[in-house]
Amino acid sequence: MRDRVLSGMRPTGKVHLGNYLGALDNWVKLQEEYDCFYFVANWHALTDDYSHAAEIPENTVEMMADWLAVGLSPERSTLFVQSLVPEHAELHLLFSMVVPVAWLERVPTYKEQIDQLGLQSPSYGLLGYPLLQAADILIYKPRYVPVGADQLPHIELTREVARRFNNAFGPVFPEPDAKLTEIPKVPGTDGRKMSKSYGNAIYLSDPPEVLIPKIKTMITDPARKRRSDPGNPEICPVFDLHKIFTPEGPREGCAVGCRTAGIGCLDCKDVLLEHLRPPLGAIRERRQKFIEKPQEIIEILNEGSKKARMVARATLEEVRRAVGLEL
Amino acid sequence: MRDRVLSGMRPTGKVHLGNYLGALDNWVKLQEEYDCFYFVANWHALTDDYSHAAEIPENTVEMMADWLAVGLSPERSTLFVQSLVPEHAELHLLFSMVVPVAWLERVPTYKEQIDQLGLQSPSYGLLGYPLLQAADILIYKPRYVPVGADQLPHIELTREVARRFNNAFGPVFPEPDAKLTEIPKVPGTDGRKMSKSYGNAIYLSDPPEVLIPKIKTMITDPARKRRSDPGNPEICPVFDLHKIFTPEGPREGCAVGCRTAGIGCLDCKDVLLEHLRPPLGAIRERRQKFIEKPQEIIEILNEGSKKARMVARATLEEVRRAVGLEL
Repeated sequence: MRDRVLSGMRPTGKVHLGNYLGALDNWVKLQEEYDCFYFVANWHALTDDYSHAAEIPENTVEMMADWLAVGLSPERSTLFVQSLVPEHAELHLLFSMVVPVAWLERVPTYKEQIDQLGLQSPSYGLLGYPLLQAADILIYKPRYVPVGADQLPHIELTREVARRFNNAFGPVFPEPDAKLTEIPKVPGTDGRKMSKSYGNAIYLSDPPEVLIPKIKTMITDPARKRRSDPGNPEICPVFDLHKIFTPEGPREGCAVGCRTAGIGCLDCKDVLLEHLRPPLGAIRERRQKFIEKPQEIIEILNEGSKKARMVARATLEEVRRAVGLEL
Repeated sequence: MRDRVLSGMRPTGKVHLGNYLGALDNWVKLQEEYDCFYFVANWHALTDDYSHAAEIPENTVEMMADWLAVGLSPERSTLFVQSLVPEHAELHLLFSMVVPVAWLERVPTYKEQIDQLGLQSPSYGLLGYPLLQAADILIYKPRYVPVGADQLPHIELTREVARRFNNAFGPVFPEPDAKLTEIPKVPGTDGRKMSKSYGNAIYLSDPPEVLIPKIKTMITDPARKRRSDPGNPEICPVFDLHKIFTPEGPREGCAVGCRTAGIGCLDCKDVLLEHLRPPLGAIRERRQKFIEKPQEIIEILNEGSKKARMVARATLEEVRRAVGLEL
């Protein structure tokens, strides 16, 4: 049997290049080797701001169209929705009985989120969200959890929760290992990290008439004010995208042209577009086919959730027996 | 349709007189007038000390034998087990997203329990237990929740949670009212409040050879050292039990005899036993019949839990639609 991998993503809507290159692209590759479980973390979408809850269903469908377009496949992986597997909530509740509140107060992302979002009164759910994540993970007993470096403390907590539970009630949960994803630097059009909330994102769903102007107006080396000024590719956000999409030959051509003022930024962007448009165009084309049939997307999620639920239920049966909740 | 009433009790095992007179006796009466839902709070039993979890199933059956013996009836009320209605856990999780952690930190019983139990590291679940209680209650949309005065802050929190949820997602939950139970003073054999943990409890299941010595060695007015000393019934724990079990005539006889040293404490206790033994004996006899067939008790709980679950599921469907978790 292949080792199991589990990961999830909040349904923020259409997927941008940062989401794709930071996670999805890796998820697709993991399908070759592992038994992959990927889920839409729709309960997590409520932890910091529930005022947009009404958008979650549409955001879920939009995000799934992207997942499917980039090559996640319901035949190869289990694609499901967190809230359609309510067993996560029960396991989260049982974990809450054995995990000290102090462990959660110490999780670095808790204070960070309060500061970043300027929360006056964080919810009990925000405090407990790493514990929900531990339940999301452990209920499938995966071998690996692919994450970025910022998520390592959560995986460490998940392992501690597993140990704590096992010590209290007997060995139910193997400890999963984090599988660090090497994430390329994906700048947004303003040079900052690409993020929906910054309004600087390039979406997989952007049609050419949106994509091309985004690239053409993208910020470059700010020191290169005039066409005749030489530039520095190493600090140019456009060059970060070249590193991802453009093969070495033409990429080096651009770098040399930039450093010598041999080419202008628009020339350089044309080269980028030449290499970026075909793969994104292909994804977008597949995406179109999926988004035209939202009912099929929902069907895929319902089927995947049923499969996930069978695994989750089996674990939960073990848990109930271990804790002593069976009559 | 009759108004609904909901209440629950932790499965601590055999029921003592304090539990009976403080809650169960009232629950039985409420059956006349209301659509009653009574549940075994087995998840709550894990909030402060999960090291005794293994005893929960047996404690549940023992407690149910008492519930049934005192007159709670599966034909008239819905008797169920919390963990058999996992919808409580899902609602608790959703509530956690809208309820500030500060609300829970302010609940007086939280600090009290930490102090009383000397907890070094309270669990996340202990902090959230009033929120689980809110979910336990609101999922059945009851009109009334019978409670003692010490539980009033929890009912107030439950009402606040209902308002908070309704404001965020639309009117799903009516606010239940607390139904204050007048609780007689039920002292244990040492004069302190009757409590399993004090080891001073008189159980409904105590056979005469246990019950009689417990009463005979029960503490009385400590100032009455000799048979010839007059006593004060108003500070005598035995007299508190007289107030519950003994009719006015013989009770006043005892009071006068005590004040005048006309009778001794053992005489007084004999009068108490005369009036306490028949009702407790009848309960114990019924209890015997139930406890001999634990499988029937489990069947009653399974059936009741199915009924409860149908109500809980209907509410949860509304909740999922309101929050926006349906695809």
